[in-house]
Amino acid sequence: MTRIGVWLVGARGSVATTAVLGALAVRAGAAERTGCVTERPEFAAADLPGLGDLAFGGHDVGGIRLAKSAEPLARSGVIPPHLPVAFAEELDAVDRRIRQGVRPRPEGFARRHVDRLERDLREFAEREAVERVVVVDLSSTEPPPAQAAELAEPDLLEAALDAGTARVPASSAYAYAALRAGCSFVEFTPNAGPRPPALAALAEELGLPWAGSDGKTGETLVKSVLAPMFAARALRVRSWSSTNLLGGGDGATLADPASNSNKTASKARGLEHLLGHPVDGPLHIDYVPDLGDAKTAWDHVSFEGFLGTRMSLQFTWSGYDSALAAPLVLDLARLTAHAHRTGRVGVVPELGFFFKDPAGSEVHGLMEQWRALTDWCCEPAPGPAEGGERG
Amino acid sequence: MTRIGVWLVGARGSVATTAVLGALAVRAGAAERTGCVTERPEFAAADLPGLGDLAFGGHDVGGIRLAKSAEPLARSGVIPPHLPVAFAEELDAVDRRIRQGVRPRPEGFARRHVDRLERDLREFAEREAVERVVVVDLSSTEPPPAQAAELAEPDLLEAALDAGTARVPASSAYAYAALRAGCSFVEFTPNAGPRPPALAALAEELGLPWAGSDGKTGETLVKSVLAPMFAARALRVRSWSSTNLLGGGDGATLADPASNSNKTASKARGLEHLLGHPVDGPLHIDYVPDLGDAKTAWDHVSFEGFLGTRMSLQFTWSGYDSALAAPLVLDLARLTAHAHRTGRVGVVPELGFFFKDPAGSEVHGLMEQWRALTDWCCEPAPGPAEGGERG
Amino acid sequence: MTRIGVWLVGARGSVATTAVLGALAVRAGAAERTGCVTERPEFAAADLPGLGDLAFGGHDVGGIRLAKSAEPLARSGVIPPHLPVAFAEELDAVDRRIRQGVRPRPEGFARRHVDRLERDLREFAEREAVERVVVVDLSSTEPPPAQAAELAEPDLLEAALDAGTARVPASSAYAYAALRAGCSFVEFTPNAGPRPPALAALAEELGLPWAGSDGKTGETLVKSVLAPMFAARALRVRSWSSTNLLGGGDGATLADPASNSNKTASKARGLEHLLGHPVDGPLHIDYVPDLGDAKTAWDHVSFEGFLGTRMSLQFTWSGYDSALAAPLVLDLARLTAHAHRTGRVGVVPELGFFFKDPAGSEVHGLMEQWRALTDWCCEPAPGPAEGGERG
Amino acid sequence: MTRIGVWLVGARGSVATTAVLGALAVRAGAAERTGCVTERPEFAAADLPGLGDLAFGGHDVGGIRLAKSAEPLARSGVIPPHLPVAFAEELDAVDRRIRQGVRPRPEGFARRHVDRLERDLREFAEREAVERVVVVDLSSTEPPPAQAAELAEPDLLEAALDAGTARVPASSAYAYAALRAGCSFVEFTPNAGPRPPALAALAEELGLPWAGSDGKTGETLVKSVLAPMFAARALRVRSWSSTNLLGGGDGATLADPASNSNKTASKARGLEHLLGHPVDGPLHIDYVPDLGDAKTAWDHVSFEGFLGTRMSLQFTWSGYDSALAAPLVLDLARLTAHAHRTGRVGVVPELGFFFKDPAGSEVHGLMEQWRALTDWCCEPAPGPAEGGERG
Repeated sequence: MTRIGVWLVGARGSVATTAVLGALAVRAGAAERTGCVTERPEFAAADLPGLGDLAFGGHDVGGIRLAKSAEPLARSGVIPPHLPVAFAEELDAVDRRIRQGVRPRPEGFARRHVDRLERDLREFAEREAVERVVVVDLSSTEPPPAQAAELAEPDLLEAALDAGTARVPASSAYAYAALRAGCSFVEFTPNAGPRPPALAALAEELGLPWAGSDGKTGETLVKSVLAPMFAARALRVRSWSSTNLLGGGDGATLADPASNSNKTASKARGLEHLLGHPVDGPLHIDYVPDLGDAKTAWDHVSFEGFLGTRMSLQFTWSGYDSALAAPLVLDLARLTAHAHRTGRVGVVPELGFFFKDPAGSEVHGLMEQWRALTDWCCEPAPGPAEGGERG
Repeated sequence: MTRIGVWLVGARGSVATTAVLGALAVRAGAAERTGCVTERPEFAAADLPGLGDLAFGGHDVGGIRLAKSAEPLARSGVIPPHLPVAFAEELDAVDRRIRQGVRPRPEGFARRHVDRLERDLREFAEREAVERVVVVDLSSTEPPPAQAAELAEPDLLEAALDAGTARVPASSAYAYAALRAGCSFVEFTPNAGPRPPALAALAEELGLPWAGSDGKTGETLVKSVLAPMFAARALRVRSWSSTNLLGGGDGATLADPASNSNKTASKARGLEHLLGHPVDGPLHIDYVPDLGDAKTAWDHVSFEGFLGTRMSLQFTWSGYDSALAAPLVLDLARLTAHAHRTGRVGVVPELGFFFKDPAGSEVHGLMEQWRALTDWCCEPAPGPAEGGERG
Repeated sequence: MTRIGVWLVGARGSVATTAVLGALAVRAGAAERTGCVTERPEFAAADLPGLGDLAFGGHDVGGIRLAKSAEPLARSGVIPPHLPVAFAEELDAVDRRIRQGVRPRPEGFARRHVDRLERDLREFAEREAVERVVVVDLSSTEPPPAQAAELAEPDLLEAALDAGTARVPASSAYAYAALRAGCSFVEFTPNAGPRPPALAALAEELGLPWAGSDGKTGETLVKSVLAPMFAARALRVRSWSSTNLLGGGDGATLADPASNSNKTASKARGLEHLLGHPVDGPLHIDYVPDLGDAKTAWDHVSFEGFLGTRMSLQFTWSGYDSALAAPLVLDLARLTAHAHRTGRVGVVPELGFFFKDPAGSEVHGLMEQWRALTDWCCEPAPGPAEGGERG
Repeated sequence: MTRIGVWLVGARGSVATTAVLGALAVRAGAAERTGCVTERPEFAAADLPGLGDLAFGGHDVGGIRLAKSAEPLARSGVIPPHLPVAFAEELDAVDRRIRQGVRPRPEGFARRHVDRLERDLREFAEREAVERVVVVDLSSTEPPPAQAAELAEPDLLEAALDAGTARVPASSAYAYAALRAGCSFVEFTPNAGPRPPALAALAEELGLPWAGSDGKTGETLVKSVLAPMFAARALRVRSWSSTNLLGGGDGATLADPASNSNKTASKARGLEHLLGHPVDGPLHIDYVPDLGDAKTAWDHVSFEGFLGTRMSLQFTWSGYDSALAAPLVLDLARLTAHAHRTGRVGVVPELGFFFKDPAGSEVHGLMEQWRALTDWCCEPAPGPAEGGERG
């Protein structure tokens, strides 16, 4: 198998650090493949690139080197304490392939900014001799983008870049550069990235696949199986209230109300769709620094059954954000490279399984998404665990 | 549409009372169809018997008349207080069609016992002028049946009945009588009913359909969507601990350790299958009289993610057993009558959607069960809520 | 025992309705005294006014008559369905003693407004021939009052009333009128009521007792025993996150952010004090109309133990606001009348046991508050349940 | 301050390991005093022995050396990973002072067995030149002792030891030896230890203090503040159901139903007393090996309020057994040494604060126990956190 480049935007953050260290550890036999969807037997015949075929690089606006950024994760229980030490050299090698990223520019991006990002990507592809590169956005959550004509029309975007006034989010600047460099793109955050029409059109024009957005790693994952349960049983959900407590980097970003609104919108979009009707109840995302990389969510669902009887379900999810997100980043890199190799162009709705806000798809139920994913790239397969045993 | 008889074993219990009163109220427009799966749009074209086409009767070993047994349910919030009063006459009419049931006979059943049950059924069918009858077992949970040759072989069963020494559970005596009377059968409890080979063979011989067993009404329902979620995401469940607190009639029965063991076995069977590996953790069913018809379950799931990180999910389900079970009884009556009408013979695995321990099927995941159910009797349909909106 | 008047501000709200109906039912032997603190044996010798000695009246700005406002409470499970019917006449009699209240006046109250309120109280006292009257504020939560000189100085308050420009909250207008009419006052909401210095000084001057504020009915009650537990065990609470889901009338009021801020401030004040240090974590109060009078709170406490080990406690409280508050209203009426009779003047800190934000006291721990309460008005008594058994 | 010996029975178990390592770390300034009750300001003037004045030794029936037994604790998050390495030498020094313990002897103990234990203690006291020794039982939970005359009468115990037929639990053999050696004794497990009358009489005769039993470290701790809350508010608890999931060593012991019954009895004893009436509901202790040293408990409390309204409280406690117990072991060693020094003889009920099943006391409420403890050995002090701030 030829080598695949995986370029991480936000390459020194917790998710990227865990993904890179995890890939190194798994390929060295120092860790198991738990949490990697594409390591399930259904994908064995899909001819996906192996974890050992991935070469990592990325952009970041700062941050400490990977071997250092792994230390607090080790202390807080996300990764085993011995791993950052055991793979310090390999982490440093990846770190040397991290280039300076771009910050938001309210006054607008110029062509030279995106050209530089594109050059970084082309250089990486050449030096690492990879067949193709997948760019994965893991940067901080941005406020929702302002309405701007250059996001709507490819020509206006080009003109604005020439004029140095392209008021696009940094995530979309990365997506532009990636597509220009011939890379596929995965939007793992709620950021705009490749979703605005001008970017989506560019992907079509250049014949490149992309997927997004907002990795479904915790509370929304649980929602995406519970809501179809209520619907299938004709139980009427009356209110669904959610509280998410986050520490860590993403929590800090979300203390900014504007970024928070982008995130809550992404989370809320699916529930109404899953239930088939609007539903009452607050949705909070709170920053609790003390929690470190841990996140705890409590959901309270009040529902009505036969003859109007009122009942409830509540759940508490206690997880580590980076441990949940990192293997999905590896899955998405492998699957998007596969989409690219097999000639898929534009958004890949079959990857909606991984996202809170699936681009190109109105399906939010996890099991339906599973079927769409496996129908696409696997041998015909039934449910996730029960397949082989049914015959 | 011709009329269908629904014969309830345990006809004066809480579930039966709620099902009968609910059917009366819904057909009169005095209650909504919430909780009735077969009222979902997917089933509109299936030509199922209507709720108004059902005539109720049943067996019980005692109990107070239906209009009275509804009162504690009204007090505890399971049914609206005005309904038992509003439908007192109709309930009395159903109550007059309840016949004396049979109790367990450790010394064995004789042919005269089952003949009498059969006669009750034939009489009911004739008087009510129904096209066919579905018998639904809602009786108390029995201890697991002892090994007995007459449960394994139809001929031995006939001989034992002739000899008056048929050591079969009461539920199987009911199933025998039902099949002899040309009725289809639904085993809604964890009891043996039609599952022993001698009974299953009789159903084949007589060309009758049956389904079972143990209605999936609460904690197991939630398990049947959460376990596939963990499996699909390649997260490794390390332990799954369950505590079920039950008041009410079924709770009292389960205070008997033998009956409890039948129930816990039924609950446990699915989880290992759903996850694809055995899993640690206790499973308790406790009788707490104070809770009335309410049941509360707490599940604690400890799981492992990427790089061995330990995380957890816990949920609390607070429901009313009868409110959850009753609409499924109506659904199963309609669907089993449909199976009978369309010539299905023997076990109907497509009805596994409704059961903790689906007869004839190794599929426990709710969404897969949903697909099997709707593939069988509905127009081609996607997920439960998302279908119509995807186009 | 002579009769005591209990004058409820917000007399047609859910709490007032439940308190009045409950007092009627208990005195008639139609309900038990559960939830009434002053019915515990410790208070037997305190010579408090009996429930049968209370005459009810009140102010409200509108609302439907009591017998009607009790109906939705009956439907939602707060009060037994037969009670509003059984006591309809008595409820109507109380309802006839409800007078028109005052609404907030951003432009300021004039003397005629408070004089009218005072007249209502004097009339009530005379007609009912009660020895003394306790006024209990149960009105909706107000925004925090603006700074106003007339709240700080009695003379300025009198002058502003004369000028018709007294910018005081309605709750303080009620408190003013009550004190002028020779009544003691209980502030059961987070409203200002008698707390501003001008009002507190008036109470001193007129020799009247008062107590407040914000009845401790649910999640804060639990906090007030859990926080001292952590403190006594030298466990370090790192974050304490609270989500309160409320339906009902108070929930609707709290959907207004300004009123909400008054309520959350009142709730938060105690925790830091109980723990002896500030503590991280959000505190949400959300309005979920679907929940009716029910309120559900989830608290997540992250704490640190020996050698820095991280652990957690979470709890879910599911209660009915009116059922929790109503008996405390009766307790406070009896105890404040007792304070009045025994010559207490000004704030009564011993009543802090009942409040989230105890006026005149810095003690928030429930067991210490219990001791202060019982030391004041009971025979010497140890813990709440263990007393008699220790000898 | 003169040195104090702390002799741990079960010296290589998780709790003992954590207590010893913790004392070493705290005295070296390498860890904070979190979780140590006797480090609270109230105890500053009590002249307790300092943590630096404690010399450790103990009995064990096997086990790996302390520096090794600390390793799994470090891996599972109970103790910081660097501590076992940093204090390896000191741990080895303590380990060299661990002597071979005794195992249960259903056929009975002989005098030579207890004499040998006594000799170990005297030798330790002499070599370490300590002023006095406190023996703390941390051994595995035993089945409840059979009725035996030698447990009831000191003379019969002496005679049985002479005859080699003393059918006493190992914990009581340790207690006998400790008292004979002039040591005070703390029963930190639910074992009999010094509680049978023959042993208690011996303590009186020899003028030695003791305390017990069964350290209150988790779910029961929470119960001991919540139950008084319900009682103080006159809320009627209808059922209280508890599920405890334990991994680790104690969990394994409790998989033995006999030991489990001893533990559940100890846990249940307090609740009825705290509430003032018996209460329904199961109490489970389950062994879930996967959980390691973690323990998770879920309690569901159904209670009744005003007018019979039904409400509920549930909580989930997630802790580490050893981290919770270890600082209490140090507290009890210091306080029992203090009792010894100040001439207390027999059971010390004021130490009930630390125990699920307080010997010599019928008080189970934590705040009352706190008052009794601090009244005994501290300056006059109010509530745990609020004291200094009230003036």
